[in-house]
Amino acid sequence: MFTFVDPLERAERTAGDRTAFVCGDRSQTFGEFASRCRKVAGALDRLGLDPLDRVALWAPNSDHYAEIYMGVPASGRAVMPLNTRHAVPELQYQLDDAGARILISDFDAEALAPNVERVIGLDEWNSMVDEAPEAELGRGSTSDTMAGLFYTGGTTGASKGVVLTHGNLIANAWHILVATSIQPDDRYLIMAPMFHAAGSVSLLPAIWVGATQVILPAFSPAAALDLIEESRATMTLAVPTMVSAMNELQRAEPRDTSTLRILYYGASPIATEVVRTATRTFPEAEMCHLYGATELAPLTTTLRHHERHLDGDLARSAGQPVVGVDVRVFDDDWNELPPGEVGRVVAKGPNVMKEYWGKPEATAAVLRDGWYDSGDLGYMDEHSNLFLVDRAKDMIISGGENVYCTEVEEALFKHPMVLEATVFGIPHDTWGEAVHAVIVPRGEVTAESIIEHCRQLIAGYKVPRSISFQSEPLPKSGPGKILKRELRAPYWEGHDKMVH
Amino acid sequence: MFTFVDPLERAERTAGDRTAFVCGDRSQTFGEFASRCRKVAGALDRLGLDPLDRVALWAPNSDHYAEIYMGVPASGRAVMPLNTRHAVPELQYQLDDAGARILISDFDAEALAPNVERVIGLDEWNSMVDEAPEAELGRGSTSDTMAGLFYTGGTTGASKGVVLTHGNLIANAWHILVATSIQPDDRYLIMAPMFHAAGSVSLLPAIWVGATQVILPAFSPAAALDLIEESRATMTLAVPTMVSAMNELQRAEPRDTSTLRILYYGASPIATEVVRTATRTFPEAEMCHLYGATELAPLTTTLRHHERHLDGDLARSAGQPVVGVDVRVFDDDWNELPPGEVGRVVAKGPNVMKEYWGKPEATAAVLRDGWYDSGDLGYMDEHSNLFLVDRAKDMIISGGENVYCTEVEEALFKHPMVLEATVFGIPHDTWGEAVHAVIVPRGEVTAESIIEHCRQLIAGYKVPRSISFQSEPLPKSGPGKILKRELRAPYWEGHDKMVH
Repeated sequence: MFTFVDPLERAERTAGDRTAFVCGDRSQTFGEFASRCRKVAGALDRLGLDPLDRVALWAPNSDHYAEIYMGVPASGRAVMPLNTRHAVPELQYQLDDAGARILISDFDAEALAPNVERVIGLDEWNSMVDEAPEAELGRGSTSDTMAGLFYTGGTTGASKGVVLTHGNLIANAWHILVATSIQPDDRYLIMAPMFHAAGSVSLLPAIWVGATQVILPAFSPAAALDLIEESRATMTLAVPTMVSAMNELQRAEPRDTSTLRILYYGASPIATEVVRTATRTFPEAEMCHLYGATELAPLTTTLRHHERHLDGDLARSAGQPVVGVDVRVFDDDWNELPPGEVGRVVAKGPNVMKEYWGKPEATAAVLRDGWYDSGDLGYMDEHSNLFLVDRAKDMIISGGENVYCTEVEEALFKHPMVLEATVFGIPHDTWGEAVHAVIVPRGEVTAESIIEHCRQLIAGYKVPRSISFQSEPLPKSGPGKILKRELRAPYWEGHDKMVH
Repeated sequence: MFTFVDPLERAERTAGDRTAFVCGDRSQTFGEFASRCRKVAGALDRLGLDPLDRVALWAPNSDHYAEIYMGVPASGRAVMPLNTRHAVPELQYQLDDAGARILISDFDAEALAPNVERVIGLDEWNSMVDEAPEAELGRGSTSDTMAGLFYTGGTTGASKGVVLTHGNLIANAWHILVATSIQPDDRYLIMAPMFHAAGSVSLLPAIWVGATQVILPAFSPAAALDLIEESRATMTLAVPTMVSAMNELQRAEPRDTSTLRILYYGASPIATEVVRTATRTFPEAEMCHLYGATELAPLTTTLRHHERHLDGDLARSAGQPVVGVDVRVFDDDWNELPPGEVGRVVAKGPNVMKEYWGKPEATAAVLRDGWYDSGDLGYMDEHSNLFLVDRAKDMIISGGENVYCTEVEEALFKHPMVLEATVFGIPHDTWGEAVHAVIVPRGEVTAESIIEHCRQLIAGYKVPRSISFQSEPLPKSGPGKILKRELRAPYWEGHDKMVH
């Protein structure tokens, strides 16, 4: 029914002279933004791109990113944002797999040139757009037309292209609007990377209602806090590592962040202690936990007013399904499990991806009867509040007992000397796997002290058998998800369970 | 994609033990309400009703009304709410026209018995539901399946049945959720009659998010104000005559209405002075003007924070198109008019009705290329703020000049002695039509004083040439729309322009 064109048209008609985007010294109105999107269409026409051709984009956050992200699908082509943290071989694979026609890049893309018809530098691209005629939008796209191709899988093996249609992303825009109440007078700060859903999720809904978006090109806690103060931002979405970093700096060097009425966080699990600190650090803001998946376009559940639940049963919940998405917990035979039982978290709704690009078997493995299997393990309470316990692939089986890493990590984070922590299984002759933790400490601390601390909080078989300490931050993917695979791999060399 | 079943299921799963409806001494949870809807389905099965059969409902507001309104479409049949103010011949016509199978009635329906297979009293119906098995909902309904049949036309001639599908009403639910931000902790007071969209519009969206609805069986300003205080209502929707009546009483005998955070009004034009008084009377509440049409399921535009615009250009605006509905002003040849020019108000979106029941010509007269012609005349400003000037059929042409009744009425309402007023054209030998006003005064006042007052505010050709006074309230339809037709008819007897 709706496509990317509808939000653009409404914004131009109802808020044409209001500010759409602010990025550094630049700002543009919704009228100017819609005009730029028509020029993006015109530039793609001049390049001879056909409907559904993939346009890859490799760049840091900017207003130009937003123009391309919106304009490419609105012109009938598919946008393909590349992860700026992926290594060259991964990007080469993705460009080849997608058959991308052009790559617009703000980085040195020489190594990727053989993988596309043409590489266009962002500056050159912007000149092409400046000079392009305004072309008509729409081009026969329908709900079912591919709007974007999003490569995921950085943390779990070979990369797959998630095909999201106009209908998928428009459905998600409705879900966001209802779940988060973005209003025309909001100023939404984009601080997460825009190649990831955490950074791009506001684009369609905020444009549709005519709310201003302020873009942070590169995250640092200082830059983010400065921009909240300077732009008087009312909403933002951070990944947990960003929340931690802002907590630390804001307490050391406070800015005026009193305009911030909602702080969203998602894209990876967050420790309750981080939320508790954020509640004290940003006392005016509602804390709102979002859970989603690229394949779900992405919003799936929300826990609103997390700050009210920190001492209650919902402290570690991902919240309830948003209006429009049906979320259930299934067993391996695809039967729904009763409240409290751990199983596969599945979801159904107009936001569920169409397919993995060119991978019918991978698609069939996760989609059945309209349900998408998220690969997450969790349970629900009596009110459909979701509790995630682990990625299915990360669960540790130690001596026949299931150990969910998040529970162990949650215990570790309660130790005052733990700054970062991650947990995974390592080979063990007797138990099959043993629980191992990698910790970045705030200062001097012993493994014994941490193990003793955990014994007070969780069952013996869940307590880490071994701990390694490191001073450098844990390796993370673009959206701040810890790359457990990289840390775990050395332990499993020569062992069978390399599937991990 | 979605049907009536989805909001019911989500509410039962996420808010099963929270309060869904309060009506007098009764209240029920979302779990109980969903169960009742399944029993409504079971009772209809026992009666042998087929999919799409029309179930007419003639009753005042109640929680049972809500069960039937939701349960009938959720079971695959179509609900047909009857206007409690319509006369027996009108209702007979509607029941015959619709081919309704059964009529559930809380009034003496003997005169309607010949027009349906079976009349069931509401008490008898409730017993049948009590004893019915819980039947499965859904029954193969899709977005395009008729969910309800709504007869309109009380004010403009022969009644027509508006066919709204599940998709239409679900789309409207999304529009309401985005436009009005109903939250799970809201208490929404239904005071407008539920046979009209003004009274039923909250049902789907409030159920979907799990918000409580409090139902006022019969409106009086005292009962409404008492219930706002008692239920600590946070939102309500009133028709303009209700707002006026509550203003008067609240100022005379104030209740604690401080919980009311939004006062919506719509269904007929409201005088700015009434909004101004409401702003002083309910100082905690945002004033929000809604404009819609039964054929649009119904929400079309909203003017939020009307109280901020009372002295500005938007004072008399119906606001901007809601997200999801495209609204334009067309000339008679269906070309879009530029801002400021008066023409036909048309709308497009997933909320546009499927058809008028059994009336392909009437349908074709108002639907073209997906656009619905509302029959309203208006113009838009540069930001798509809509200004309604009249019903197309009510516009007066006097001496070749177009006179829009609402502008004249607005002037009349600024006179301190005018309690109610309506304006229409009456035959005139020289000018074709002359502007005539009917006024219910607050006390002693002369026609000369009112005419002189109008001369200060509007052009001479718009000033009423004649005024009649009456002490009884103006005749109104269920939703409080003044029945201009009834007042005008006697003047036009024997004249050609009976099309009025």
